[in-house]
Amino acid sequence: MRSVEWHNDRLCMIDQRKLPWDLELVDFATYESVIEAIQNMTVRGAPAIGAAAAFGLALAAQQNSTHDLDLLRRYLNTAAQELRRARPTAVNLMWAIDRMLPIVNSSDVASASDLRDAILTEAQVIAEEDVAINKRMAEHGAALIKDGDTILHHCNTGMLATVDYGTALGVIRMAHEQGKKIHVLLDETRPRMQGARLSAWECKQFGIPFDIIPDTASGYFMHRGEVNIVLVGADRVAANGDTANKIGTYQVAVLAKENGIPFHPTVPTSTVDLKIASGAEIPIEERDPAELLTPYGMALVPPDYPVRNPAFDVTPARYITGIITEKGIIYPPFEVGLAAAKK
Amino acid sequence: MRSVEWHNDRLCMIDQRKLPWDLELVDFATYESVIEAIQNMTVRGAPAIGAAAAFGLALAAQQNSTHDLDLLRRYLNTAAQELRRARPTAVNLMWAIDRMLPIVNSSDVASASDLRDAILTEAQVIAEEDVAINKRMAEHGAALIKDGDTILHHCNTGMLATVDYGTALGVIRMAHEQGKKIHVLLDETRPRMQGARLSAWECKQFGIPFDIIPDTASGYFMHRGEVNIVLVGADRVAANGDTANKIGTYQVAVLAKENGIPFHPTVPTSTVDLKIASGAEIPIEERDPAELLTPYGMALVPPDYPVRNPAFDVTPARYITGIITEKGIIYPPFEVGLAAAKK
Repeated sequence: MRSVEWHNDRLCMIDQRKLPWDLELVDFATYESVIEAIQNMTVRGAPAIGAAAAFGLALAAQQNSTHDLDLLRRYLNTAAQELRRARPTAVNLMWAIDRMLPIVNSSDVASASDLRDAILTEAQVIAEEDVAINKRMAEHGAALIKDGDTILHHCNTGMLATVDYGTALGVIRMAHEQGKKIHVLLDETRPRMQGARLSAWECKQFGIPFDIIPDTASGYFMHRGEVNIVLVGADRVAANGDTANKIGTYQVAVLAKENGIPFHPTVPTSTVDLKIASGAEIPIEERDPAELLTPYGMALVPPDYPVRNPAFDVTPARYITGIITEKGIIYPPFEVGLAAAKK
Repeated sequence: MRSVEWHNDRLCMIDQRKLPWDLELVDFATYESVIEAIQNMTVRGAPAIGAAAAFGLALAAQQNSTHDLDLLRRYLNTAAQELRRARPTAVNLMWAIDRMLPIVNSSDVASASDLRDAILTEAQVIAEEDVAINKRMAEHGAALIKDGDTILHHCNTGMLATVDYGTALGVIRMAHEQGKKIHVLLDETRPRMQGARLSAWECKQFGIPFDIIPDTASGYFMHRGEVNIVLVGADRVAANGDTANKIGTYQVAVLAKENGIPFHPTVPTSTVDLKIASGAEIPIEERDPAELLTPYGMALVPPDYPVRNPAFDVTPARYITGIITEKGIIYPPFEVGLAAAKK
């Protein structure tokens, strides 16, 4: 089972909003329903969103049954633009669409039917590559983990956030599979609780020892010397190493530096966006106040209380020890290492 | 209406667990029920707990109807020790008991009945003083607030956390009453959500403009330059200025310093504990995992998920700009200023 998978001409995904209570698989037959799933966070996690968008385009190709190749291309270009706009911060979504579009518009494709096949094949290649890349990242990253280490982790970056295996949580899983005795402190990650609900569920599945902590306690445990390394994922890395990730990552990075603890985003190079010079250019999505006021339908405070709910923040490169990628760990100066890794 | 008040031979308190949904006043007739109320956080906030414990001792004096003065004294000394142990971190609880005990054991008291009167009178003096002290603190602190300022605030420090008016939120209220145009960002303060539930409710009552933010976003708003000053309360201040307060305060202080934003605990001098040289000696209470797993009875994650739930943390003095007290604002070196303020 993968979190994003093609099955019987449908895109099949785990509904991440139902975890940890129910493991529910949902089939998607239209690209519009995939956009909705990305927006309402049925599927989340930068690499998982990228693969979902690629498969979304494969669904679009199926939805339009025309034999006219040009007509199909126009339809797919429109669908691609709609998919691209589903969420603004994670670059993997744009990256996946940018990788699909040359095939959509390729002069090598002879018929609408060939185009449908080519699109689906490319989406499947993206998904397979994601798993292989995650395992290479995990091997590089696991070399940083020592027997007895406690790892602080923010949000969810595991199999659920990717097609399979995970980024930062993939590193943790690899270290665990290598037989290292580790312990993980999982930031709850308000407002959506990806740490408490999704990362905790994954740690349970794989037998990795963990404790959930409130986001207010990450600094406390770092200051007491109970944390050896901090691992997070990322939604977009700028050319200078500035890194956008789930809200709360910036403050975890500042606290790690203040306490002399290494801080490592773990990302496939598809998350690196060289078109963006620094984090200042990364758009930050603000989401529905209801995520804070009525988490998972439970009324925490009255619905008319005013709220600010930014979904991401940017960690300046100076707080980052090294970026773990499938091509190895990139250390400062990030401009040089990231440009080389993207070649 | 006060959060802690003597009324018809009973201690009457707002049940803070019911807010913001219901404003429920509960009567307490025994000191044992007051201990329970302190432990289950019906009443919370260091100064409010101090006053509740003082009135708790007045209830104990009523509960034992003996005419034997020595018997009553022994009973009250036992009750005082039980009250003192109700919660370990906030010093105001110990401070209030230490202020009541000399009266319990005074040779000036002639009869059991006189002792009952003297105890109740002292508890009422403590409560009245708390309100007067808060207003003096608020005046000192409000001088730091400029028209147009945005104030970041953690936990609850308002009328609910005190007998009335509040400490850090009292400063904010005073600035608002002085006609300054201010905006408050209220950290939710997981796990118990005192910011989202209690401080937001108080801001609503007094018409103070605010937004609730997740604890993961305090660093984000500071880094964007949207915060001018950070105000918090405290549960215990050591002789060197190290300050214990609600979990999450330490990281807010680190982030304030990193972003050049003044950080001010606001405390009555009764919260300063000169017997403790540094924060390392302050006991930190770990509370029930259920506070994270099933907040307010809402099941967030399965009950068998492991959790760490420290209720407080210690902010080292080096992160503190100045401590606002009823005797003025104390700046470093704190050893000198705090010792002088306690004289």
